[in-house]
Amino acid sequence: MAFSRAEAYAPASVANLGVGFDILGMALEGMGDRAIVEFQDSPEIVITDIQGDGGKLPRDPGLNVASVSARALLDQVGEKRGLKMKLIKGLPLASGLGSSAASAVVAVVALNKLLDEPFARQDLLPFCLEGEALVSGYHADNVAPSLLGGIILVAGITVDAIQFLPIPDELHLALATPAVQVPTNGAREILPKQISLKTMIHQSGAVAQLVDALHRGDLKALGAAMEKDKVIEPARAFLMPMLDEVRARAKQAGAISVFIGGAGPTLCAVCDRQSVAEATVSAMKSVYSEVGMRCDARSVRVDRRGAIVLDAR
Amino acid sequence: MAFSRAEAYAPASVANLGVGFDILGMALEGMGDRAIVEFQDSPEIVITDIQGDGGKLPRDPGLNVASVSARALLDQVGEKRGLKMKLIKGLPLASGLGSSAASAVVAVVALNKLLDEPFARQDLLPFCLEGEALVSGYHADNVAPSLLGGIILVAGITVDAIQFLPIPDELHLALATPAVQVPTNGAREILPKQISLKTMIHQSGAVAQLVDALHRGDLKALGAAMEKDKVIEPARAFLMPMLDEVRARAKQAGAISVFIGGAGPTLCAVCDRQSVAEATVSAMKSVYSEVGMRCDARSVRVDRRGAIVLDAR
Repeated sequence: MAFSRAEAYAPASVANLGVGFDILGMALEGMGDRAIVEFQDSPEIVITDIQGDGGKLPRDPGLNVASVSARALLDQVGEKRGLKMKLIKGLPLASGLGSSAASAVVAVVALNKLLDEPFARQDLLPFCLEGEALVSGYHADNVAPSLLGGIILVAGITVDAIQFLPIPDELHLALATPAVQVPTNGAREILPKQISLKTMIHQSGAVAQLVDALHRGDLKALGAAMEKDKVIEPARAFLMPMLDEVRARAKQAGAISVFIGGAGPTLCAVCDRQSVAEATVSAMKSVYSEVGMRCDARSVRVDRRGAIVLDAR
Repeated sequence: MAFSRAEAYAPASVANLGVGFDILGMALEGMGDRAIVEFQDSPEIVITDIQGDGGKLPRDPGLNVASVSARALLDQVGEKRGLKMKLIKGLPLASGLGSSAASAVVAVVALNKLLDEPFARQDLLPFCLEGEALVSGYHADNVAPSLLGGIILVAGITVDAIQFLPIPDELHLALATPAVQVPTNGAREILPKQISLKTMIHQSGAVAQLVDALHRGDLKALGAAMEKDKVIEPARAFLMPMLDEVRARAKQAGAISVFIGGAGPTLCAVCDRQSVAEATVSAMKSVYSEVGMRCDARSVRVDRRGAIVLDAR
């Protein structure tokens, strides 16, 4: 069946989950990007419109993650036609919520539908990575969950490095995104280049505990493991305003742990039920409002679907 | 009930499991140490006999891991009497099979029985560590499995850092211990002190895959993850004669992967059934015999019981 227009949605995601730097990511419900793609006879990709980015994203198709990802897929299948692409950003930029990954994924999933689905969902990963690499390097820890949903272990950038991890039934998250920007690449540059063997052993043990806790559905153990990071959070903490205070107040409200979403500044609190997640959202918000800082906060659950096609005709 | 003599058994164990350096250990069936302890009125511990060590272990109770561990327990409970202790070594020394850990564990478990079990099994860990520390430093990756059985994650040296991991039903191991000695502490000194962040990410991902594979009972994924180590095995490989050849021949015989048991020189092959494990034992043995090297080899399964009391009267 031939389509001339397709629309897709890709969810937000948070990478790292504390101690799982560059190897763990989780898709989030209720927030995401949309893209609409249409064939055009001329071979180039034209970004006709971007909504919701405050004019900040590049309209140049060679510089925008959505069009670069779509280009990789067009080239792979040898499609001669070009695209008109419209992007509707539901995710804030440079927030730690996987905004660039969602844009890369949503464009590729929409285009794959337009092409009548030459690729199975997971096999779209390499194309999405081409776009994501523009802003974050070749990392699949946001792209894979945004594409596939769930909590994902990505021990590499190939499809066979992807493993779905169990999603504890009770897992709820409280998210707070203060109005400060943390560029992903800048946040990477401040990390230590070398770490001690002793620290590596510590991090390995904590990652092992985290994965084990997910399998056992033990949220307390999960939260404890997440917060054991001695490498990434200590280096980045100074970029996260009010981190200690948010963590303390979230826990007073009943949250189990708080970790930095990706490169931040979004802070994510692990909660074991909806009521606690809502109380934690209020607690986190109030920390920022007390210092006069704007903050978007909400409670969410894990997105289990990943990216979806909304419409094709 | 008061006892005057108690005898216990503690199994062999292998630490690390490839990429799980210092955090993973596994107890092994069919090989272990025995100890017999008796009260004596004078307060010291006397090692009356050690069998099976070729005269190599210290008889000085201040230098032997078994008596040092027992001393820690005696002191903790305020027992004024001393002990006569006999140790029957079933495990070769400095072989990577947790010989020192088994001696520490077996003495403590026998003594705990003699004292009418003031401590639950897992709470004996700190006493065992006192002895193990004499030869390996404070590491629980052999002590915990020898004490408790199974496959254990030890992300630290306290009881709450211990987590039992699932034991895949089909898991069989082929072990080969060539006649070369690798002192545990020497094997530790040759490890890199610093590693790159990139390598840490790689190791974390592989450990996560290993733990996930155990939970899913996926021996192929388990074996692949074990062999991803880029830090420990590369540094120690030169101490393990014929490692590459043993690995290749074990795989030809049907084994899934080969890892170094602890600090070596024992090599452990992961197999999915008894017949493959036996064929792998033959294959590994023949590699060493072709170069004129003695080697003990056998197939084993995971020990699920840990240390046990054999007799008390």
